[in-house]
Amino acid sequence: MLMKYRLYTPGPTSVPEATLLELAKPVHHHRTGEFRTMFAEIQSALQYVYQTKQTVYTITGSGTAAAEAGIVNSLAPGQKALCITNGKFAERWAKVCSQFGIEHKDLKLEYGVAATGEMVAKEFAAAKYDAVILVHSETSTATVSDLESICKAVRASSSPEALVIVDGITSIGAIPFKMDEWGVDVAITGSQKALMLPPGLAFVAFSPRAWKAVEANKNLREFYLDMKAYAKSIADGDTPYTPANTLIEALGVSLKMIKEETIEGVWKRTSTIAEAFRQGMLGMGLKLFSQRPADSVSAVYYPEGISDKDFRGTLKKTHNIHIAGGQGTMEGKIFRVNHMGYTDAYDCLAAVASIEFTLKKLGYNVQIGSGVAAAQKVLAKLF
Amino acid sequence: MLMKYRLYTPGPTSVPEATLLELAKPVHHHRTGEFRTMFAEIQSALQYVYQTKQTVYTITGSGTAAAEAGIVNSLAPGQKALCITNGKFAERWAKVCSQFGIEHKDLKLEYGVAATGEMVAKEFAAAKYDAVILVHSETSTATVSDLESICKAVRASSSPEALVIVDGITSIGAIPFKMDEWGVDVAITGSQKALMLPPGLAFVAFSPRAWKAVEANKNLREFYLDMKAYAKSIADGDTPYTPANTLIEALGVSLKMIKEETIEGVWKRTSTIAEAFRQGMLGMGLKLFSQRPADSVSAVYYPEGISDKDFRGTLKKTHNIHIAGGQGTMEGKIFRVNHMGYTDAYDCLAAVASIEFTLKKLGYNVQIGSGVAAAQKVLAKLF
Repeated sequence: MLMKYRLYTPGPTSVPEATLLELAKPVHHHRTGEFRTMFAEIQSALQYVYQTKQTVYTITGSGTAAAEAGIVNSLAPGQKALCITNGKFAERWAKVCSQFGIEHKDLKLEYGVAATGEMVAKEFAAAKYDAVILVHSETSTATVSDLESICKAVRASSSPEALVIVDGITSIGAIPFKMDEWGVDVAITGSQKALMLPPGLAFVAFSPRAWKAVEANKNLREFYLDMKAYAKSIADGDTPYTPANTLIEALGVSLKMIKEETIEGVWKRTSTIAEAFRQGMLGMGLKLFSQRPADSVSAVYYPEGISDKDFRGTLKKTHNIHIAGGQGTMEGKIFRVNHMGYTDAYDCLAAVASIEFTLKKLGYNVQIGSGVAAAQKVLAKLF
Repeated sequence: MLMKYRLYTPGPTSVPEATLLELAKPVHHHRTGEFRTMFAEIQSALQYVYQTKQTVYTITGSGTAAAEAGIVNSLAPGQKALCITNGKFAERWAKVCSQFGIEHKDLKLEYGVAATGEMVAKEFAAAKYDAVILVHSETSTATVSDLESICKAVRASSSPEALVIVDGITSIGAIPFKMDEWGVDVAITGSQKALMLPPGLAFVAFSPRAWKAVEANKNLREFYLDMKAYAKSIADGDTPYTPANTLIEALGVSLKMIKEETIEGVWKRTSTIAEAFRQGMLGMGLKLFSQRPADSVSAVYYPEGISDKDFRGTLKKTHNIHIAGGQGTMEGKIFRVNHMGYTDAYDCLAAVASIEFTLKKLGYNVQIGSGVAAAQKVLAKLF
């Protein structure tokens, strides 16, 4: 039976058809006036998505490349960061610090727990830090930390100039993120999440305070990720090394869609779909994993007796739907569904309905329609 | 008037239609059995192109990322490399050494001059080195160094275990390159040259000798480009960080074309087209730049009175053909035309003919057809 392919993993996420078609166009060279004009437009659209007046640098690489670039350029070996580790990606950034000789205290939170301003205030009262590094929306736990209050806590602390370094990989372009207004210093994201593009590009922006730190960092051991080279090139509307230019051109198509919907429109759609999905899960008697659920991705506990392998296997095989499982210690315990990017109300309904069908098939006692009805009630807000 | 777009720059190069269409397919997730199977096939095809039994690691990034990965993972700070600097890219790898505390002597050759085994033997007789770093085919000067004889010279020297680190960005998959047979230790390439893909992926392979050096390099300051993480992941058929998976899937299409043509077939086609192009240039009275021309790209002196701006501007505007100018000190003095990758005999003829038309238009005394006839005589070998 015909079943369309639906990608509901929290990255890569599905990409608009118009963007995909752009990728099928013949390759052009990137050292041209046309490319520079297009790159400047993309720059301005990225600033809009980041809500910043600062330059957003485009790196050809994974999100990890941009995170390394953000952390290692702005913090010198021997400086000290508070790493809030409440998930797999947060733990990775602590490892980056270790690898580059950046001292760090890890504030370990249980998976699913969000970081708050109070927690950071307490840590900053007990010790001096040059930076706090956190993940705004932890993809691995579907948990959103209170970034705005964390920025305030840092500014009100005895280290008010400490850098707030934020992995916004599953927040920027999905949920409210206001780099300049909140005072975020280093903001990182990737192409394959809310920006509606395949993987391959990553982005990082620096506040004037963070850029001063970059310039002061004299013994930087980076070449490909030396951000001063990117700054020099962008002054000419360029990148220092051959960029993934077809992905950049396609990014232009996706960013135009975001601008047309407006960033506030994107945030509202995403949060409504996320709320509908959560109500759908609760409506069929399931339990959410996160103590402060993110709107970009949801994590749901498996009910007893349902195995990850059977559940996701059936979704894939019978429904042609790909959702994510748990990572690390949560493997087999939760499943995760994306709400970011190219996702509309009916994608949400299909997700909820397919989960109902699959759980029923696997013997879980669910009344078909209970989740969908709860979700639909929320989705009504959109129309 | 309808004029098809033709991209004749030495990277990005033009990409087969079938590969472009692959890029327009819906995005899938990369942590699946299907992806692993496909990635394993690509691995084996890359080994075929590299002519090696070693793993070829796929990095999401520019060629510069793979070059940094190759150099910095296999050479520790304080070790000493002989950098053969005979072009813009060779000079960049010397800068990478500086940035990471790798000592280096730069053997500066005039642009357009190739490195030979004798030169390296002389340097290795005068001092001890841990490695020689060279560009096999310098894109900026269209010059090919004698890699095979350089490998022999190193092995016959008093530092026979020194690493031969090779930027094969415009050689691997275009001209004969035999990693294992010649004893190359670190071999680097990028996606947007002979591999017939847009920019965004880069590749690096290590000989057992080089991999021993990677494992012995205990104080590595890399995270995204730490190759030990790639080795660990590839054991599971995976990459350590989200790869540009749509580019990888499209790479499969291009590599299949190379396998079908055979690598020897690709080398023969490329070298015949390059020879035809060179004869075409000589046939209309032009002079080649390089003292040892590469077959992947040709560089040609402008005749007196012809400006780069007018020449390449006319080609672009009237003929919809994009060729490259000179870089650095050669800006305005030469133009460069690609022969790598998705280039056939009639692309070569169009290149020669369009150069004839353009030079004539700009007042250069050329007999229309003189270049094309000379080129065609060589191309006859192909049929």
